[in-house]
Amino acid sequence: MRETIRASLREDLGPAWQDLSTEALGAARERPAVGEVRVKAPGVLCGLDLVPEVVGVVEAAYPGSFRAAHPTTWERLARDGDAVAPGTVVARLQGPVCTLLTAERTLLNLLQRLSGVATLTRRFVEAVAGTRARILDTRKTTPGLRALEKAAVRTGGGVNHRFGLYDMIMLKDNHLTAMGGDIAAAVAEARRRSGPAVRIEVETSSLAQVQAAVGAGADLVMLDNLPPETMKQCVDWVAGRVPLEASGGITLETVRRVAETGVDYISVGALTHSAPALDISMKIRLA
Amino acid sequence: MRETIRASLREDLGPAWQDLSTEALGAARERPAVGEVRVKAPGVLCGLDLVPEVVGVVEAAYPGSFRAAHPTTWERLARDGDAVAPGTVVARLQGPVCTLLTAERTLLNLLQRLSGVATLTRRFVEAVAGTRARILDTRKTTPGLRALEKAAVRTGGGVNHRFGLYDMIMLKDNHLTAMGGDIAAAVAEARRRSGPAVRIEVETSSLAQVQAAVGAGADLVMLDNLPPETMKQCVDWVAGRVPLEASGGITLETVRRVAETGVDYISVGALTHSAPALDISMKIRLA
Amino acid sequence: MRETIRASLREDLGPAWQDLSTEALGAARERPAVGEVRVKAPGVLCGLDLVPEVVGVVEAAYPGSFRAAHPTTWERLARDGDAVAPGTVVARLQGPVCTLLTAERTLLNLLQRLSGVATLTRRFVEAVAGTRARILDTRKTTPGLRALEKAAVRTGGGVNHRFGLYDMIMLKDNHLTAMGGDIAAAVAEARRRSGPAVRIEVETSSLAQVQAAVGAGADLVMLDNLPPETMKQCVDWVAGRVPLEASGGITLETVRRVAETGVDYISVGALTHSAPALDISMKIRLA
Amino acid sequence: MRETIRASLREDLGPAWQDLSTEALGAARERPAVGEVRVKAPGVLCGLDLVPEVVGVVEAAYPGSFRAAHPTTWERLARDGDAVAPGTVVARLQGPVCTLLTAERTLLNLLQRLSGVATLTRRFVEAVAGTRARILDTRKTTPGLRALEKAAVRTGGGVNHRFGLYDMIMLKDNHLTAMGGDIAAAVAEARRRSGPAVRIEVETSSLAQVQAAVGAGADLVMLDNLPPETMKQCVDWVAGRVPLEASGGITLETVRRVAETGVDYISVGALTHSAPALDISMKIRLA
Amino acid sequence: MRETIRASLREDLGPAWQDLSTEALGAARERPAVGEVRVKAPGVLCGLDLVPEVVGVVEAAYPGSFRAAHPTTWERLARDGDAVAPGTVVARLQGPVCTLLTAERTLLNLLQRLSGVATLTRRFVEAVAGTRARILDTRKTTPGLRALEKAAVRTGGGVNHRFGLYDMIMLKDNHLTAMGGDIAAAVAEARRRSGPAVRIEVETSSLAQVQAAVGAGADLVMLDNLPPETMKQCVDWVAGRVPLEASGGITLETVRRVAETGVDYISVGALTHSAPALDISMKIRLA
Amino acid sequence: MRETIRASLREDLGPAWQDLSTEALGAARERPAVGEVRVKAPGVLCGLDLVPEVVGVVEAAYPGSFRAAHPTTWERLARDGDAVAPGTVVARLQGPVCTLLTAERTLLNLLQRLSGVATLTRRFVEAVAGTRARILDTRKTTPGLRALEKAAVRTGGGVNHRFGLYDMIMLKDNHLTAMGGDIAAAVAEARRRSGPAVRIEVETSSLAQVQAAVGAGADLVMLDNLPPETMKQCVDWVAGRVPLEASGGITLETVRRVAETGVDYISVGALTHSAPALDISMKIRLA
Repeated sequence: MRETIRASLREDLGPAWQDLSTEALGAARERPAVGEVRVKAPGVLCGLDLVPEVVGVVEAAYPGSFRAAHPTTWERLARDGDAVAPGTVVARLQGPVCTLLTAERTLLNLLQRLSGVATLTRRFVEAVAGTRARILDTRKTTPGLRALEKAAVRTGGGVNHRFGLYDMIMLKDNHLTAMGGDIAAAVAEARRRSGPAVRIEVETSSLAQVQAAVGAGADLVMLDNLPPETMKQCVDWVAGRVPLEASGGITLETVRRVAETGVDYISVGALTHSAPALDISMKIRLA
Repeated sequence: MRETIRASLREDLGPAWQDLSTEALGAARERPAVGEVRVKAPGVLCGLDLVPEVVGVVEAAYPGSFRAAHPTTWERLARDGDAVAPGTVVARLQGPVCTLLTAERTLLNLLQRLSGVATLTRRFVEAVAGTRARILDTRKTTPGLRALEKAAVRTGGGVNHRFGLYDMIMLKDNHLTAMGGDIAAAVAEARRRSGPAVRIEVETSSLAQVQAAVGAGADLVMLDNLPPETMKQCVDWVAGRVPLEASGGITLETVRRVAETGVDYISVGALTHSAPALDISMKIRLA
Repeated sequence: MRETIRASLREDLGPAWQDLSTEALGAARERPAVGEVRVKAPGVLCGLDLVPEVVGVVEAAYPGSFRAAHPTTWERLARDGDAVAPGTVVARLQGPVCTLLTAERTLLNLLQRLSGVATLTRRFVEAVAGTRARILDTRKTTPGLRALEKAAVRTGGGVNHRFGLYDMIMLKDNHLTAMGGDIAAAVAEARRRSGPAVRIEVETSSLAQVQAAVGAGADLVMLDNLPPETMKQCVDWVAGRVPLEASGGITLETVRRVAETGVDYISVGALTHSAPALDISMKIRLA
Repeated sequence: MRETIRASLREDLGPAWQDLSTEALGAARERPAVGEVRVKAPGVLCGLDLVPEVVGVVEAAYPGSFRAAHPTTWERLARDGDAVAPGTVVARLQGPVCTLLTAERTLLNLLQRLSGVATLTRRFVEAVAGTRARILDTRKTTPGLRALEKAAVRTGGGVNHRFGLYDMIMLKDNHLTAMGGDIAAAVAEARRRSGPAVRIEVETSSLAQVQAAVGAGADLVMLDNLPPETMKQCVDWVAGRVPLEASGGITLETVRRVAETGVDYISVGALTHSAPALDISMKIRLA
Repeated sequence: MRETIRASLREDLGPAWQDLSTEALGAARERPAVGEVRVKAPGVLCGLDLVPEVVGVVEAAYPGSFRAAHPTTWERLARDGDAVAPGTVVARLQGPVCTLLTAERTLLNLLQRLSGVATLTRRFVEAVAGTRARILDTRKTTPGLRALEKAAVRTGGGVNHRFGLYDMIMLKDNHLTAMGGDIAAAVAEARRRSGPAVRIEVETSSLAQVQAAVGAGADLVMLDNLPPETMKQCVDWVAGRVPLEASGGITLETVRRVAETGVDYISVGALTHSAPALDISMKIRLA
Repeated sequence: MRETIRASLREDLGPAWQDLSTEALGAARERPAVGEVRVKAPGVLCGLDLVPEVVGVVEAAYPGSFRAAHPTTWERLARDGDAVAPGTVVARLQGPVCTLLTAERTLLNLLQRLSGVATLTRRFVEAVAGTRARILDTRKTTPGLRALEKAAVRTGGGVNHRFGLYDMIMLKDNHLTAMGGDIAAAVAEARRRSGPAVRIEVETSSLAQVQAAVGAGADLVMLDNLPPETMKQCVDWVAGRVPLEASGGITLETVRRVAETGVDYISVGALTHSAPALDISMKIRLA
């Protein structure tokens, strides 16, 4: 997390770590101030633990400075996962105005994005309430932010699918193509080459393929872009022997119908690749 | 750019740089294959130069491997900035199936996001066509991707605002608060402390403040969340002496009306903080 | 792999990247030479792909130098996984004597260690030949070399257990202690908190615990330090429902007896924490 | 040292810094606990200062977490260099069970390896007790761990030879080959090219070569793989004018006889390339 | 700043972070001592904030050591920007002799260089006192130290020109050559391609070029290597419409005459590329 | 070297790797051009090998760009160590004007500084021609550039003293203070604690101290700030038993007199801390 914050501040402050606007204030930049982080649209909060981290990195970036010598404190007024109404103040910072100003944008950029992911996840989770389906994320994450975005999915009530290419085997259509389309051979080869720590999932696009995958001993089966009726058939045929994951262009409008087929998991790429930022701002006043 | 690609692959491949699914294919992973990158929704393409870079980083990540010894080539079938129709194949890669599979997600994650930003920017640019207004981005970018996202804004036809806190002075409401609200004093102090390379912009929220900012010698004036009529008054009063930037919650629905007030720039945070990804996929077939 | 090589050369060449002894040769250091990498004790070779990588990093470390301008070539005379007899020349390098001399120790340190791991693994694998047991590594690896050492285990014929704390859940005695010793509760909690990508293993030290673990739905059960007779009882009771892993101080002397109990896996920390280096040297002669 | 610890934890926790097993404990992971680091075989302890460092890096890796907010303390119950009996508890940690569990393996991997090196060194040092010979290490160290392993050699009672190619000139057989075998020319060239900070050692394999090296003004002479009788002749001939170092496949069985020839130093590659890990474990109980 | 200090200590301590001379003192290295930083030639002090930073990095470099366990404190006896007389003690450190010895050279190397830059800047600033000219630095800085050296210029009373190629457009003779020498076209193209954050400066070498640049709308005009009389003509013609910067081989001997032409800025490369170090030393005594 | 170049370009191009001025040229930036690197003052050239390296890093910094696709070539017209007259063209580059413009300042900053060091060293070396004294550098180098500056000293004809605190023991007045001023005890302790790779030098400030140091077995003795007559006495007394190094404020005016005392080495801090940059520029014309 600190690496991300540092990279983000480097982008904002440049190679000489300068905040020209704040420096332009002269002596006024040392005034004690209060900054309130306020959510401006309804949503699910995520990332509040970043507040002290961003401030800490800003202070460390200016060794020997007024910022470093006059640490900023903060008060937490909400918790990650809270559904917050517009206008809610979720954190209050107290410190020199220069620290608040330099930290503001980096802090908000992170909070807004993570809260956006948590908010969208929550909406999907609520849409399937009462079914057995759990909402999964995918690897369609923002380059560099995967760990944080996957945490935001958990905050929103979702469950994490694999973190990368390294912690599970998933044989997708492109993999099966390479194996000449032979699911049984592909699963057998995968099993032979992998140790006891590794689950094997197979992507399928018909009941016949589901049957082949289950027969081959897959640990998990993905139903890719199947119509709900076909999904239902698959669920019935599998009868709980392995978990089933529905996938492929599922939206808030369609997710409930998918869930009602009885699948165990529904994965949604949009949670991380298209969640709009939650509107959050910081208002500073002199203390 | 390479740093971003490397970081992204590290997320996907983990500390041991493993693609378990591809390794699970056994000898089949060495088969020659063709991968086609296909856009699946209408949009503006951005990031095609990343194709060879991602492939290059993947190959370098496996020194001594089949991937490294059998380089993947590519063919460019479109150009950044092209408006592409659904179904368009924008690049064709040729190489071992293992290279294509390992590169696929990292490549698509980047392409989808940058094309999403370019697409949204283009829509704003087209919405103001025929007016003098140019579309600006903001610092509300994805942590770690600012340079790439700002390039995507240019690809979409927008213009870059400042890159960070280091290349311009912008005195926003929070800064003016620190100076007791005195615009003239703030601009004078900023001028005194800055060298010949630095522009000074002032954020205003009334005609009176605009007048104060221009009087104080600001190089640029931002109109924050003003109603279009007031913007128009400001444009009239300023009469071209300094450029004016409209800002604050401007959407595709409202942007034309803002542009017609005669402002020089309109800045839109959503370009980078809320652009949905453009749907792009890769289909692999054996060569 | 390149990071490891670079770190290793930094240790050897210091902050000014100097090889004082080679520089001390004066003009003679530019002479063309042949270096032969010779194994001096019986063992299993591992790491030969490192040869061109180490040479490449050495050449890159001296931009503009004779080394960089006169690239060293190499010939592979054996393959990773080969059982080699003392005296076997496994690689021949041709290039300026200065490149060979500077690369020598870093190259050999890596080759010797990885071949040591592969050699010891092979001995364990051969000791259980004909049983169903497969030899697993552990996380008891050399700090910084885990990925390379786990590859060496595969080269020796072993199978990789989990790579770290991030790709599987293993509930060991210390975890169960935290859960008040309640295996069922621990597995249930683990299942509830983890997604579809994650396997759950439970460490047990009695048949009763094995029964509890299997009953709780563990995906894999480790038998820790059990006498072979008890292992056999566990194997009989489990009857193939989940794989069993034997663990705990198993040596070349005891491993066959453990394998004959019918367990699926035997994990051996010594593969990576106590494998003696295989004796390998490089002899250089002028070309 | 911190870099090594960080690299090691990155290997263990992966790109998202996850300890899945500990997270799987749910609320139980926050319970206060005591962890005792216990040596399970006789040996020389080395690396205890790493305890607070590893814990500190773990805590810093989880900013904002329970781990970070509830620091773990420790008590030192032995000192580096102590010869410890099996069963000795050498450190006691007190903190949340999640911190102890996440730190455990990284901490033990380092402690076990360094104590292994110190233990083997001590055995060599004791084997030559009463002679003038001092035990030296070599550059045959684990990639990435040279500084720590050389410190472990000192802890065991040995003396460090050069740290790398950068702090001394050693003209080995391969160097002399490049110089046409002319020791006098090689030493003269080396002296001419080096400043006042650099010692020059020459590797020899006969009395004649020793005489040539001493005559050429070498600061130190290495006797490579000479039989003890020849070493004795060399010692007699040199008569204390320069120090002599015996080298080449010297074992615990042969080292005393070598020492009794009167050489000043005996270098042993096995100290670092083949020292078995000392068996050390951590037992955790709730506090 | 900390990165620079760390890099500098790495150069001095090598890959194993060793200070052999201090370690050679044995137990004596732990004695409490006082170190006085004394300026030995007249000059302007710059860099005192580095004192605790260097000490902090040294202490952190030796985790678990006496240095880390016995923190060094310091007392500031002067301020950056002070003109100090030879013999002035500007800082007093109190701590173990080993910390003072290891930190000494890195600390002094930085202090001497930055104070050298500040001292030379102050001499230029004083040479133009009473004129409107302000002294500017250039990009002719020491690789790796630009931010610190530009801060030293400010400490000396100068003003910073652009920080790099990224925060301003400067069209120099080489750029104009690429544009066929057409100043108007070059400025128009630059304006068209740049956003509202960017100033445009044009380098000129005659009154005609100055007229072209001002006519083209340059924000700033540089007079390169013009004789003072011609500069005066340019100043008169421009009449304050844009600021003018004099540049090119200006020395302490010539700067006043240049300033008296009425230019706004005078840039001096020597401030950073040829400032001699200020002589500063540290004297240590036992406490 | 590449690290330094990269760091230097990062300073110049900022976090988004932009050269705004070159981008402002539009299509003209792609024109083929020739850049001539011309020395403008008499001096000793050093750093020419950096030319292709800087160009290479610039090209790599813009993957997918015109710069990367149209590599710049160069021609070497002089050699490091050449004494060059004003006006000499030492290198000619051919490539797109954008590459030449972006590389120019970083290249020149390095060349100017290193040539400045080599030039000053050469003047000292020439001043002592015919004596036995060799000119040594010190650790008073520019933070981050020690390896390059020490190479420049060699290029100028000087000899390198130790590279840092890690490759030699030097007992200076501050160390002796810690040992109660007892030279014999200090040398004995140092010898006892150091291995066969380490030389021991003692700083002295009187004949008596020289005698103590030689008596204690120092390998090298530094004469600190002694008057030439006393140096001569020391030289006579030592009579070649150990080398002597003169040190302390020695200038071009005084160095010959010091050399004539018969000392072996004269160390000069100014070589690296106060060498003025050699004036070098690049002139670009269209090809």
